[in-house]
Amino acid sequence: MKKLWSGRFSQETSKQCEDFTASIQVDKRLYAYDIQGSLAHAKMLAACHIISRQDAAKISAGLKQILKEIEQGKFNFKQSDEDIHMAIEKKLIAKTGAVGEKLHTARSRNDQVLLDVRLYLRAETATIIGLVTDFQKVILRVAEKNMGVIMPGFTHLQHAQPLLFSHYLLAYYFMLKRDKERLTECLERINVLPLGVGALSGVNYPVKRELTAKLLGFPRVSDNSVDTVSDRDFIIEFLSNSALLVMHLSRLAEELVLWSSSEFEFVELSDEYCTGSSIMPQKKNPDVAELIRGKSGKVYGNLMSVLTLLKGLPLSYNRDLQEDKPPLFDTVDTVKESLIVFSGLIRAVKVNDKKMLSQVANGLMEATDVADYLAMRGVPFRQAHFIVGSLVKYCLEHKKNLHQLTLAEYLNFSQLFKADIFSFIKLENCLKRKKATGGTAPAQVKATIEREKRIL
Amino acid sequence: MKKLWSGRFSQETSKQCEDFTASIQVDKRLYAYDIQGSLAHAKMLAACHIISRQDAAKISAGLKQILKEIEQGKFNFKQSDEDIHMAIEKKLIAKTGAVGEKLHTARSRNDQVLLDVRLYLRAETATIIGLVTDFQKVILRVAEKNMGVIMPGFTHLQHAQPLLFSHYLLAYYFMLKRDKERLTECLERINVLPLGVGALSGVNYPVKRELTAKLLGFPRVSDNSVDTVSDRDFIIEFLSNSALLVMHLSRLAEELVLWSSSEFEFVELSDEYCTGSSIMPQKKNPDVAELIRGKSGKVYGNLMSVLTLLKGLPLSYNRDLQEDKPPLFDTVDTVKESLIVFSGLIRAVKVNDKKMLSQVANGLMEATDVADYLAMRGVPFRQAHFIVGSLVKYCLEHKKNLHQLTLAEYLNFSQLFKADIFSFIKLENCLKRKKATGGTAPAQVKATIEREKRIL
Amino acid sequence: MKKLWSGRFSQETSKQCEDFTASIQVDKRLYAYDIQGSLAHAKMLAACHIISRQDAAKISAGLKQILKEIEQGKFNFKQSDEDIHMAIEKKLIAKTGAVGEKLHTARSRNDQVLLDVRLYLRAETATIIGLVTDFQKVILRVAEKNMGVIMPGFTHLQHAQPLLFSHYLLAYYFMLKRDKERLTECLERINVLPLGVGALSGVNYPVKRELTAKLLGFPRVSDNSVDTVSDRDFIIEFLSNSALLVMHLSRLAEELVLWSSSEFEFVELSDEYCTGSSIMPQKKNPDVAELIRGKSGKVYGNLMSVLTLLKGLPLSYNRDLQEDKPPLFDTVDTVKESLIVFSGLIRAVKVNDKKMLSQVANGLMEATDVADYLAMRGVPFRQAHFIVGSLVKYCLEHKKNLHQLTLAEYLNFSQLFKADIFSFIKLENCLKRKKATGGTAPAQVKATIEREKRIL
Amino acid sequence: MKKLWSGRFSQETSKQCEDFTASIQVDKRLYAYDIQGSLAHAKMLAACHIISRQDAAKISAGLKQILKEIEQGKFNFKQSDEDIHMAIEKKLIAKTGAVGEKLHTARSRNDQVLLDVRLYLRAETATIIGLVTDFQKVILRVAEKNMGVIMPGFTHLQHAQPLLFSHYLLAYYFMLKRDKERLTECLERINVLPLGVGALSGVNYPVKRELTAKLLGFPRVSDNSVDTVSDRDFIIEFLSNSALLVMHLSRLAEELVLWSSSEFEFVELSDEYCTGSSIMPQKKNPDVAELIRGKSGKVYGNLMSVLTLLKGLPLSYNRDLQEDKPPLFDTVDTVKESLIVFSGLIRAVKVNDKKMLSQVANGLMEATDVADYLAMRGVPFRQAHFIVGSLVKYCLEHKKNLHQLTLAEYLNFSQLFKADIFSFIKLENCLKRKKATGGTAPAQVKATIEREKRIL
Repeated sequence: MKKLWSGRFSQETSKQCEDFTASIQVDKRLYAYDIQGSLAHAKMLAACHIISRQDAAKISAGLKQILKEIEQGKFNFKQSDEDIHMAIEKKLIAKTGAVGEKLHTARSRNDQVLLDVRLYLRAETATIIGLVTDFQKVILRVAEKNMGVIMPGFTHLQHAQPLLFSHYLLAYYFMLKRDKERLTECLERINVLPLGVGALSGVNYPVKRELTAKLLGFPRVSDNSVDTVSDRDFIIEFLSNSALLVMHLSRLAEELVLWSSSEFEFVELSDEYCTGSSIMPQKKNPDVAELIRGKSGKVYGNLMSVLTLLKGLPLSYNRDLQEDKPPLFDTVDTVKESLIVFSGLIRAVKVNDKKMLSQVANGLMEATDVADYLAMRGVPFRQAHFIVGSLVKYCLEHKKNLHQLTLAEYLNFSQLFKADIFSFIKLENCLKRKKATGGTAPAQVKATIEREKRIL
Repeated sequence: MKKLWSGRFSQETSKQCEDFTASIQVDKRLYAYDIQGSLAHAKMLAACHIISRQDAAKISAGLKQILKEIEQGKFNFKQSDEDIHMAIEKKLIAKTGAVGEKLHTARSRNDQVLLDVRLYLRAETATIIGLVTDFQKVILRVAEKNMGVIMPGFTHLQHAQPLLFSHYLLAYYFMLKRDKERLTECLERINVLPLGVGALSGVNYPVKRELTAKLLGFPRVSDNSVDTVSDRDFIIEFLSNSALLVMHLSRLAEELVLWSSSEFEFVELSDEYCTGSSIMPQKKNPDVAELIRGKSGKVYGNLMSVLTLLKGLPLSYNRDLQEDKPPLFDTVDTVKESLIVFSGLIRAVKVNDKKMLSQVANGLMEATDVADYLAMRGVPFRQAHFIVGSLVKYCLEHKKNLHQLTLAEYLNFSQLFKADIFSFIKLENCLKRKKATGGTAPAQVKATIEREKRIL
Repeated sequence: MKKLWSGRFSQETSKQCEDFTASIQVDKRLYAYDIQGSLAHAKMLAACHIISRQDAAKISAGLKQILKEIEQGKFNFKQSDEDIHMAIEKKLIAKTGAVGEKLHTARSRNDQVLLDVRLYLRAETATIIGLVTDFQKVILRVAEKNMGVIMPGFTHLQHAQPLLFSHYLLAYYFMLKRDKERLTECLERINVLPLGVGALSGVNYPVKRELTAKLLGFPRVSDNSVDTVSDRDFIIEFLSNSALLVMHLSRLAEELVLWSSSEFEFVELSDEYCTGSSIMPQKKNPDVAELIRGKSGKVYGNLMSVLTLLKGLPLSYNRDLQEDKPPLFDTVDTVKESLIVFSGLIRAVKVNDKKMLSQVANGLMEATDVADYLAMRGVPFRQAHFIVGSLVKYCLEHKKNLHQLTLAEYLNFSQLFKADIFSFIKLENCLKRKKATGGTAPAQVKATIEREKRIL
Repeated sequence: MKKLWSGRFSQETSKQCEDFTASIQVDKRLYAYDIQGSLAHAKMLAACHIISRQDAAKISAGLKQILKEIEQGKFNFKQSDEDIHMAIEKKLIAKTGAVGEKLHTARSRNDQVLLDVRLYLRAETATIIGLVTDFQKVILRVAEKNMGVIMPGFTHLQHAQPLLFSHYLLAYYFMLKRDKERLTECLERINVLPLGVGALSGVNYPVKRELTAKLLGFPRVSDNSVDTVSDRDFIIEFLSNSALLVMHLSRLAEELVLWSSSEFEFVELSDEYCTGSSIMPQKKNPDVAELIRGKSGKVYGNLMSVLTLLKGLPLSYNRDLQEDKPPLFDTVDTVKESLIVFSGLIRAVKVNDKKMLSQVANGLMEATDVADYLAMRGVPFRQAHFIVGSLVKYCLEHKKNLHQLTLAEYLNFSQLFKADIFSFIKLENCLKRKKATGGTAPAQVKATIEREKRIL
């Protein structure tokens, strides 16, 4: 099969080499962006009088026809076409003859492939930002619905202090908010026109890159031709942001796995989002949460792949860079499907408020409050902490909770205790007092939910 | 050794456990930030009437004394003190008695350690941004000094098209510009006050977090207490940005290694930045460039460490998180020293413009220009490409360059060639034509240097 | 400061460069191996008549004196000495004059540094194998002591089938067994003499590498000089094996964190291996387990560092390779301390057999056995599985366990049930039936413990 | 679509969840191993009288028919079938009715999937070992063919000492030899029967795992049921070994890229293994080498994925583990195709011995030999090194090589030089002297090639 670049070659590419280097099975998903880019390129070439308006019109017509054929499944992607760019250009030439042979004027595959990837990633990043927003809405809705549910807060997976369940969920809301910030900032660096720098040095024609940018909705054109074709920063940055995002999902997934265990019983997952066992008839497994937890590995690996790829690579374009696509595409797919299915799972979670509350009641989670009670009455906090530590030891030995002790028992530890200690350590009071910004006080949490609902 | 939290414990911590869990040898570098944070905390506590003004004053005096002692090397960091926070608090109590025991009111180590790390990383990120700017200035200076030097541009490490050496260097300038953008955006997410959320739920006192923020120069306070103590996003984001930055350095380092080889001879490195061999007397090695290239591995590994750390970790604080510090500190050190030494190395590079030019002259790098010559005269680009491919094959067989051919030879390949082909493919003309934004045309490059000098 | 290799240099190394390239603060820990290697080298040189016996004797005496000085803390490690090899050689020359200047005959730093690292890693790998064995012994002891304790076995963190707790622990025993196998095999590839290949091509002297090997206890000498100085496979292999090992530890650590939560309460950790909270007086945290879980990140990162380092590095020695040491040393330290402290933690764990058993009793974990009951009576397993699935649904609706149902209830689902179903699903019978190799039947488990005790 | 495990479920799996959890598009490649495993399982069940011989025969016939259908492309893989195991079992039931429903007796998907993966990886590892051997043969052949070619040996990419090109190539031969050792050892840990441990605890039937093992050619059965279904060590070990292998390939690829540059010109790659540029007619690019270099990133990433997956995962089976397959399959494919195409590329390389030799001649690569000349005549090596360093500085200043100096010039640096210095530093003598094991002396190299040819 004759290659479009084969003029200077004496031998044909070996089949082995052709198969190894071809990327069409991977990059064919870029077809619509490739055509979109070529349409704008042809328009610009005509506007700059590099090709005639008639030729541009024929090229446009041919490209639109090819787009239709691909979308109707009538386009035959061949390994020998190397990549989607060559496949489309060849087809265009087959359709339009010498006119089609003019499309690649003032353009190289080096800037063309970057254009396609930037158009693709611009669209997908916007989609992902939307999906994160959808997920945030689900969190706000579940937080709102379960306002009033009290759960044991954990540090070190040990009972720490009581929390509003809604407040807990909001922690994830704010992680996602940061994810969106980062993706939005990354989007500005994705949204830069690479076309027009040619292979690496610029092009010989009086092109107007700013015009192409306008046609394709890019607010900026790239600054340096050598950098443009060597750069994959925007991909790595997207992968880094994705790694952070799936890390967040992995944490929430872990919690759902824990919470739906027989030992925790904090939530029940919907049958719709669980599967069974091939051998154990009683099983109902939190597969979706587990898979989301596991998929973090994939995205981390993809990030590591592309970082490794670029390490120590001299400028400008090197063929290694072709390997940026599988990890990028896989990450985009993984992030999107994870966000969608996880939203569905969370929306359908049943919260077991009774079990959560009983775990709060059984603990010694008001210990900090007791210490603060003393501190507010003049005991230096460190001493108060130590006194309550002894009180806790006493509770453990006598299998009592802090609210089950008598005032007499309290007085054995400090003369500053009064009868109001019992109301002081009532759960609702413990929560209410945490009213500084960011605290779990119900008023705070409600206000936060309202504010964020407005923002979304 | 009695621990400050030991009230509820029956047995002392084992020596093994103490050694394994202690972080003081690592986190002692945070001492100044810990004291800075405690000074602000005490001031806020007094302003909110949680402790008295007198107590706050005594605490402040004690802390300042401790700061002095540490800076004078008089402070004894003990393994049994666990971490820098406990070490300083203990010393304060030793100095001020019960008053010092009040400092930890309305505060947990969970929010305190985050305060220290955020203060630290805010300062270091600013330093790094400054070092990147310094590096950019060196690049601009070298680019300016070598304006006019022509080098072979590479794709696939094969001669591609001629380039201005200064244009090539600017590619790195623009990579660093993106690095700065990312670091600057990350800085906004670092620059958030965590203090005042306590262990995970907020605190029982009427604290004013906004006041503490103001005292410490934070424009924002964190939104959610659980998120605050669980979050290490800002560290991962910094590490991701660092990985991109050292990746850029690794690419330039690779080029310096290549360019200073006997085969390339494009540059000569200064003796000051090279070392010799223990056995081979003739050796002068580009060690600095090699080490910078290699240090990318370290930073990639550090990023992977912290991503792994967070994977699947339930909220809120878990002790695993202590392991965020060694990779963070190591990355900060590596990035800083790499930037400094690399600036020095680049500043002292001698450019071998003759060798570069001779490599340009020996190649067939004007082939694209010849094709464009034909395209501009009406041959569809694909056909022009093929014709010039055959011309190149002819050159290879006859061991000639494109500018060594006669017009007659040219005419064998296309009747459209005229005598002006020779001036068309003159190096200076090849360069001049690349004048669209981002191209290597001398006027473009000069203007870019001027513009960026003004920006810095 | 004059460098030993400075003959051909016109300018001194800059301070910046000296600091950046010096590795002595890291590699000084190799001092004993460096001296051990030099002693053998000198002996071989004399045996091959390359230096005189008297010179060799003086060199040996000097080296032994240096060893003593280092061990007594009297040796001043200076940055300007670059690395431990140069520091010791310089000191030797200072002590012995021209004689010391002969030591580096027929040797390069390139092969010398590899010798040191191989001697070091040989010793440390052996130590680690010993520590793994110690850990295995602890597991066997705890398994033996708790023989008879029944726990719920989990898949997907959901109750699956009852297990002997001892059987569960043995899973970790066998993971560690594989770790030892891999480390032992790796040790053979570590245990190869590199010395005698010089800088990269071999040496000009009639050395006997086999003699050096014998003196240092290496069973083999390396095969190819270029490979020898370029190769870091043995380090990566060790790091890969370490990554697997700490991954195993991270899984057990995760289980201890889960099991010691208030929700699980399967175990209680000893006060000796826990720490408290700076603010919450009731807290007792499983810090050791958490840190071990977290340290997996470090080791993964170290592996990634060295893999990145070697990626695309041309032969032979490049200075990048110096960066192999920090991740190697850090991994050795991490693995050793993790094994030691984790053994201590496990040894001191209190197993809450009652809670485990009560969780078994509350579940529906005999469902598979009920299905097998039917299958053994002729119902195709898939149908049996479905019937029992319906039975389970019935149990869930009526809040009953499988052993709380009446025979009448069973008969509603299949006429094949008889009264013996109740004895069939007794816990002890469920366990006993799993008696094929590897199953949880008590006889199997006891025999395995006995067998493995003998093997250790 | 009714699931085989759906008895206890009230709601059907949502489409979203079904799509997200289905693995059939990935694991269908295991079909032949799944059927092979089921055939052996059925045979064992019959031999142990768990099912009848007639039933086993019907099952076998059905399975073989399914195998044929798949191989003929007549099998319809449906998303709703979840995975290849369920797809085949369902089809078997469709074909054989109640008999087919007995196949899953005494088996779980947990042990079944591991059986399939182990059978698959056993076969693929053997294939890869074979491909490595093929590659080694190519190296030996090229080394043999080019015996006598002398090249500059590099350290730090600077000219170091002359080498036989064949000796250089053998460095890669020995790397591959270690790769094979590791893969062979790993194969023993792959080659262990997992089947018969059921879901996690063993099975209720009197199975003979040793019989199944025999039928499938496994020398061992797994030791512990819980470990068996939780373990992915053999996959990680394979991935680690693959990472080392592709790292080796990346180094050789880097060298080919360097060597085929205009600056090096050490080799010429065959047109069959190169491709051209879409814009620059003169380009012939070493794409295959670049892609192989780049694919190291992929394999590193895959290793990191699976390590992350397992980090902190409690026992036993968790659905996360499903994510082990994409990185495993991708690695197997990448390693295989890389080895095949790289063998082809190397076989067709043309060595430019003249350019190599001219680079040797231009250098100062005999400096070590000159120093050794002095050392052999009594000058302590360190002094000899310094003297020759000065000599080198003199050469650089006078633009001479060491063999272009006169004796008089030599004598200016040491009175020990005699006329024989010129023959001493003749290239062939420099090579010949490196005759200790592993050195580049021609006799050594020839003998090594002969020995290794016999071994292969």
